[in-house]
Order: sequence, then C-alpha cells, then structure tokens
Amino acid sequence: MRKLDLREDWGNYLKEATDEELAEAALLLHSFKRKRNGDYSTFVGALFGMERDFDEENGTLTLTVQNSTLLNNSIGILHGGLTATILDSTMGTLANNSLPDDKAVVTTEMKVNFLKPGIGDAFRCVANIIHKGSKIIVVEGKVFSENHKLIAHSTGSFFIINRKR
Amino acid sequence: MRKLDLREDWGNYLKEATDEELAEAALLLHSFKRKRNGDYSTFVGALFGMERDFDEENGTLTLTVQNSTLLNNSIGILHGGLTATILDSTMGTLANNSLPDDKAVVTTEMKVNFLKPGIGDAFRCVANIIHKGSKIIVVEGKVFSENHKLIAHSTGSFFIINRKR
Amino acid sequence: MRKLDLREDWGNYLKEATDEELAEAALLLHSFKRKRNGDYSTFVGALFGMERDFDEENGTLTLTVQNSTLLNNSIGILHGGLTATILDSTMGTLANNSLPDDKAVVTTEMKVNFLKPGIGDAFRCVANIIHKGSKIIVVEGKVFSENHKLIAHSTGSFFIINRKR
Amino acid sequence: MRKLDLREDWGNYLKEATDEELAEAALLLHSFKRKRNGDYSTFVGALFGMERDFDEENGTLTLTVQNSTLLNNSIGILHGGLTATILDSTMGTLANNSLPDDKAVVTTEMKVNFLKPGIGDAFRCVANIIHKGSKIIVVEGKVFSENHKLIAHSTGSFFIINRKR
Repeated sequence: MRKLDLREDWGNYLKEATDEELAEAALLLHSFKRKRNGDYSTFVGALFGMERDFDEENGTLTLTVQNSTLLNNSIGILHGGLTATILDSTMGTLANNSLPDDKAVVTTEMKVNFLKPGIGDAFRCVANIIHKGSKIIVVEGKVFSENHKLIAHSTGSFFIINRKR
Repeated sequence: MRKLDLREDWGNYLKEATDEELAEAALLLHSFKRKRNGDYSTFVGALFGMERDFDEENGTLTLTVQNSTLLNNSIGILHGGLTATILDSTMGTLANNSLPDDKAVVTTEMKVNFLKPGIGDAFRCVANIIHKGSKIIVVEGKVFSENHKLIAHSTGSFFIINRKR
Repeated sequence: MRKLDLREDWGNYLKEATDEELAEAALLLHSFKRKRNGDYSTFVGALFGMERDFDEENGTLTLTVQNSTLLNNSIGILHGGLTATILDSTMGTLANNSLPDDKAVVTTEMKVNFLKPGIGDAFRCVANIIHKGSKIIVVEGKVFSENHKLIAHSTGSFFIINRKR
Repeated sequence: MRKLDLREDWGNYLKEATDEELAEAALLLHSFKRKRNGDYSTFVGALFGMERDFDEENGTLTLTVQNSTLLNNSIGILHGGLTATILDSTMGTLANNSLPDDKAVVTTEMKVNFLKPGIGDAFRCVANIIHKGSKIIVVEGKVFSENHKLIAHSTGSFFIINRKR
C-alpha cells in the first residue's frame, strides 16, 4: 500500500534525522496541516507562513514571512529567488485587492534589486501602488529584515485580466 | 520524545491524506533524502529536482526542474517567484562557473519578463553570459516549458566577490 | 523682426565659435534640414542620423547612429540616457513593424544594462523580438560600438494599442 | 571659408523657417550660448534647460526640465528615451552628490516604467537614494508632469568608481 509505505518511509527518515532535519520536517508538516485546514491556498504560502496585513488608510499591504533553513541558498542566507517570491506575492496580492471581484492580475515583469543578505527569524514585505492604470498596475515592494534593514527593493507590472469563474 | 511525536504526527497526517497530499509528501521525502545524501546542497535545489548540464562549447548552462503541485500559485500554474528562483539559480550558477575557485558572485539585480503560464511536468532553464566584466557579470536566462515554449526571460547582474573560506 | 534677430544672433554665435562649436552647429543645421526634407519625423532621429535596416529573414532591426560631442555626457562618453533612447527607438520600431497598419505600440517598461563606455564614431543597435503576445510584445536590444563591442543590453515591454487616425 | 559658409547656411535655413522651426533654432542657440557661458557642461543638459534643486534635509534631488518640440517622439509626446535621460541625469547626479570628491558613479543598470504620456511645458524629476552600499548605490527616480501627474518611475544601480583626475 502506498500510504503505508510512505508512512514507513517518513518514519525511517525521521528516525535518523539531525536536529536541523527534524525542525525542517516539523515545519513542513505544520505547513501541510495549515494548507489542509484552508489557512493557505498554496504550499508556498504555507511554507513561508505568510501573514497579511492591509493598511486601508495608506493603501499598503504588509506580508510577514517566517525564515527557516528551508529558504536558504547554499551560503546560508535567504535565496534570492525566494526573496522575489515574497515580493511577487505581496505586490500581486495588493494589485488584486485594488480591483473588483471579477478582475485579477498576472505579473508581466518585475525587477528586484538585492541590497543586503537576508538573515534573521522573519522578514516583512511592504507593497504600495505606484500607478493604477486601466490595463496595468505598477507596484513597488520592499523586503525588510527583522531589524528593519531594507534587504531588497522591487517594482513590477501587473496586467489586469478578467477573472475566470 | 520530539522524534517520536513527529513520527506520530506525520503518520496521522498521511493516514488521512488525499492523493495530491500523498504525492506531495512523497516528493518532499524524496527531496529530503537526496539532500541528506549530498545530492543537493539546498532544500530549494532538492525540491525542484534540479539537474545541471553545462555546455562548454557554447558556454551555456541548462538547468532542468521537475514541476509539482508544490510549485503552483493559487491559479494552478508555476508561481512567478519560483520562476524567478529557477532563473536566479541557473544564471548565478553559470556566473560562478565562469570564475576561478577563490571568487564567487552575489545577485545584485534581476528583471524577469513573464511571457506564458508555466504548465507541464518539467521546465528547462538556459543561461548564457551577456557580458563578463571585471566587477559585474551580466547574464541572460530563459525558461522553457516541455513543449519548448518560452515562458519567461530574464537578465541579471552578478557582482564578483572573494569567496569566503 | 524675430527672423532677422535670430539670423543675427546665430551669426554672432558662429563668429566666435571654436572648432567643436562649429562642428556641432553644422551637425544641427544638417539635422534640421533633413527633418525639413522629411528624411526624419523627429529631431531626435535627425540628430542621431538614424539609419534603419530591417532583416526580414531573421526578424531583426538594425539602427545605425552617428556619434557626436552633442551626445556626450560630462565625462565625454555617450550619455546613458541617449543609449536608452537608441534602444527604445530600435526596439519600438521593430515592435511597430511587426503589427498591422491599424496597430501601434507604446513602451511600458525597459531595463538597460550598461556594459562598456560608449565611444567611437558610430553605434549600431540590433533589436529582436523575444515574445509576441496578443497584448504585449517583449523585445531585446543590443548596442554595439564600431569595433563590435557590446556596450549596452536591454529588454523592454511594448503594449499594443489601436493606432489613432 | 567654413565659418562664413556655415553662417550663410544657417541664414538660408532661417529665412524659410516655419514658426516651429524658428522656435527650435532659437532654443538651440540659447542652449549653445548657455553651454559656452559654462552654465552647462553638456549639450543634453543645456537642451533640457536642466535646473537642479538639492533638498539636504530629505536627501532628494529635484531636476526641472523645459519641454520643447525637440524632445518629442513621432506622436508628439516626450520621447521615452529622453524620459530615461532625465531620470539617469537626476539619479546619477544624486548618487554623485552623496560621495566624497574623489569618487564618482557610473550607471550599471536602470529600469523605467512608463506610466503616462509626457506632455506639458515642463517636467520635474525627483530622485532619492534607496540604498547606499559600499560598492553600489541604488536610486529611485520619478518624473512628474506640470500638473503633478507621475509619468515615469525608475530604479537604477550606480557603481562607485575612483574619479579620474
């Protein structure tokens, strides 16, 4: 049975796990459970433990993510591509939020400037709309480390489409 | 015991898992094992099942990655940020490969143009060097879907640093 | 009379002109005449002495421009913004060429990587289409100096609009 | 005689000039004179009639430029490449200003998002430093039309070099 085999395999893997491996396996299980519970619609969102906070007054969206060894590149800092993932998620969510229910956005381009190594227990990404056109929304995003250091800056273009039903 | 608890927790999670959840848990376990075996130095590399192929004659690096539901965004296609992750990995690896052992690179900026939805069982990313300066290497990357459609294009700047020992 | 005053003013300016100033005034007059003759639709095109060559087989557009002290920045090399101007002109013209007569494009974004100082008597810019979508055309542009050195690389997004009559 | 010939040529050109051509020739002469007087170090600066205003408290640089038919593209709005020229000038000047006298910067990359058509009598470009590293300064620039509408947004990387004596 596949299910039984997989349980045994996971069991065997965990039996010999180092502390780091245990922490990673625990984090992933936690992510899977939260996805199953409907807390997150994607594995990426669950893995990052993304929490959103929309500031209606300023029109900014803040997304907080938890760091882990799973997000590291080969020199032990936040993978640049994952920094881009956090930025894309935050900027795209803000662009979507600014539209009526029958519209959505797709990212057409984004540039990221990497400013400082991404280290620490958590990151905070803040997005704001630079320009809302009738076809394209241009958004700015900034990623901060826990000590409020700016580690990455991005601008992206989000094309408005009709949401599929 | 933490280890025992975690094994039990994973067991319980798998007991009630859907087919998609089983596939995801199997893929993750496979990734963890390959990381433990030293096949990959990062979880991201293992999760993507990255395979590298350097073409010395043309100076291009091709990185093949396996798709899975873990890499999807909320509308079921490859997450834009993960597309950027594949590009950053391929372009950065090529830039590193072009340097002597005591040098390495850090990404200073990258722009990605998203051209088509990322769908299919696997993706292929091809990187080539646009310009190799004494301080900065500029690299181009292209991501193709299985049917050879170009789904994303990127250029990035990689700053040369002394490798830490 | 305004016309008479201006002729006198130009006359006085030229009387005391250095060799560089004479060359610049001659180049500008030449540009103005070519614009009056209809060789160019814009002053920028005339000032650069832009010549276009479309390679139908490869789908590339090559634009050749003449250098002059008028195009220099404060350290005597091609102004980075003017490099961007050459790129935008070439890439935008190619995107326009690829469309039927009732369509045109506007640039929505472009990134330029500056690779080498722009020096020499002339520059050559080559553009090719990376992706032609139904809404956006993504184009690559490269600027070469006379000795075939790549001095700048760009990618840009061109949004398709209905041409105004 | 070359000088005499050129004066005669300019005279002949102006004799038959339209109002727009007269305005352009007057503007160019004015630019040349200001460059001769030392008001500007480059023709581009003189042509745009660039005026700088550094706000020490906020660390922002504002550059005001005068519009003219000389700066138009073929559909009668500010040429996208010249928008990039204004941005590069403002951002680069701010980066230079932030350094000691023996250092200068060169632009390594810039991305521009074009948001609205550039129309009106003048434009205002405001630059601020996003991150000042030891090797690279990342700067943001915004171009506004006279009615305070944001028409373009840019971020650029400026590499620090030793100033040549």
